[in-house]
Amino acid sequence: MRLISFEHQGTASWGLLDGARVIDAGPLASRFGATLKEALQKDTLSDLGGWAATADAALQLANVNLLPVIPDPQKILCVGINYLSHVQETGREVPKHPMIFTRWADSQTGHEGHIVRPNVSEKLDFEGELAVVIGKRARHVKQADALQHVAGYACYNDGTVRDWQKHTIQFTPGKNFPATGGFGPCLVTPDEVGDPSSLKLITRLNGAIVQEAFTNDLIFDVARLIEYCSVFTELLPGDVIITGTTGGVGAFRDPPLWMKPGDVVEVEISRVGTLRNIVVDELL
Amino acid sequence: MRLISFEHQGTASWGLLDGARVIDAGPLASRFGATLKEALQKDTLSDLGGWAATADAALQLANVNLLPVIPDPQKILCVGINYLSHVQETGREVPKHPMIFTRWADSQTGHEGHIVRPNVSEKLDFEGELAVVIGKRARHVKQADALQHVAGYACYNDGTVRDWQKHTIQFTPGKNFPATGGFGPCLVTPDEVGDPSSLKLITRLNGAIVQEAFTNDLIFDVARLIEYCSVFTELLPGDVIITGTTGGVGAFRDPPLWMKPGDVVEVEISRVGTLRNIVVDELL
Repeated sequence: MRLISFEHQGTASWGLLDGARVIDAGPLASRFGATLKEALQKDTLSDLGGWAATADAALQLANVNLLPVIPDPQKILCVGINYLSHVQETGREVPKHPMIFTRWADSQTGHEGHIVRPNVSEKLDFEGELAVVIGKRARHVKQADALQHVAGYACYNDGTVRDWQKHTIQFTPGKNFPATGGFGPCLVTPDEVGDPSSLKLITRLNGAIVQEAFTNDLIFDVARLIEYCSVFTELLPGDVIITGTTGGVGAFRDPPLWMKPGDVVEVEISRVGTLRNIVVDELL
Repeated sequence: MRLISFEHQGTASWGLLDGARVIDAGPLASRFGATLKEALQKDTLSDLGGWAATADAALQLANVNLLPVIPDPQKILCVGINYLSHVQETGREVPKHPMIFTRWADSQTGHEGHIVRPNVSEKLDFEGELAVVIGKRARHVKQADALQHVAGYACYNDGTVRDWQKHTIQFTPGKNFPATGGFGPCLVTPDEVGDPSSLKLITRLNGAIVQEAFTNDLIFDVARLIEYCSVFTELLPGDVIITGTTGGVGAFRDPPLWMKPGDVVEVEISRVGTLRNIVVDELL
């Protein structure tokens, strides 16, 4: 199943993506939930599938604006330095624990939406990543059981303002400028994705491949990340874990490669889809 | 004005604290807001004052359970290493930018509530701090105007699980265990607090003073913190900035001084009040 959050004629909604058709769950919000997060909380997605098969009214994908897959996660946990080959190429030691930092929901933007370069920096960088959306509350979960708590997967561009990320050792400022994190196009359920450790991830800037990785190179895989995070916090339906990026980011290139207005940046993950964003300048 | 969030007979509410009396705003939620955060969003606090003066029904403070001052902030921004004398005593350089990390709302606990020591660590530490609650949206705010965006002040104990804070360079795990951050007892409006740079802050563990500071020692004062944070994120009513701690934390003592079950920890700030919490073990 592929699920989206979207805006249509000024109203936010969500629904099921069926090729180029959108089955709008909004009119049945009281049954399925008013948002995709609420549907996960109420555990209505399996019912939705049966209903959608009989629904005859549909919107065209081309007529809706996609929102971030989950526009309003309570928690967005981001992982730093999680690809082994990337760690080795930078000469770092292999970490013993996942490096966890955070984004807030308003730092996100949806598929085909704008990534906004803030007026205070020209050092806007891309980071293509696999995002995991939690479907079932997770606290003190063991690695072996962790994937049962996953609602699905999506692409994420953990867009970063590098100089603000490096103001101090804490990454928060550089990771939270409004509309810098692309999240889309849709939530793909685990039955369609299969093993999250067998995915290929490519980031393209203006059509050129700038990052390429396989998720079997993750030091801490999806299950291990859920286990670790569920020790120090409660993960709830709609929460997001962004699993980290690989080599190739603009900051480590010589000369550095920053995203600039007019650029098109894509994150493609096998069996998950392709997230596409356009870079614009902040309007003051 | 002193405002609290509380629970009474199983129902969450909020209201005005008048000595040992609580004027419950809950019955007039549609007028003043269903929560203190909503009251800040709707900007109803000045009206509340007039109404409360004529209200004859009141609860006794002793009969309510205080919740975190704002139980549901959208954003909690924490500041690291912000007291000059503390920086100097650790031999660090004076930072050029505030160090910003984050907590989530569910890591909080109210006045007289339990601070929970997780079962995975014995290294639970105290950090007494001045908390600032945002009252008016702040984005790209200048330092000179910043205090106009403050709804009030409270005490915060930025309780920290030190070993989990140091798993990597990002502090997130050690700062987000459930019920480790004390926030209370009440929100005190700026007219009662006056200059936030002239406050004395004391932390006591089982009655003994373990931290003592004056807020005029802050490297980045309240106004400068709001200016800085409002560049990279939008601050909204109910958001919280925790302004950092001074020397004396348990981790840097020899031998280290950790909080343990049964301990009583207090954070007292002049003109703001005293936050008191009891440490308990996590129940699994």
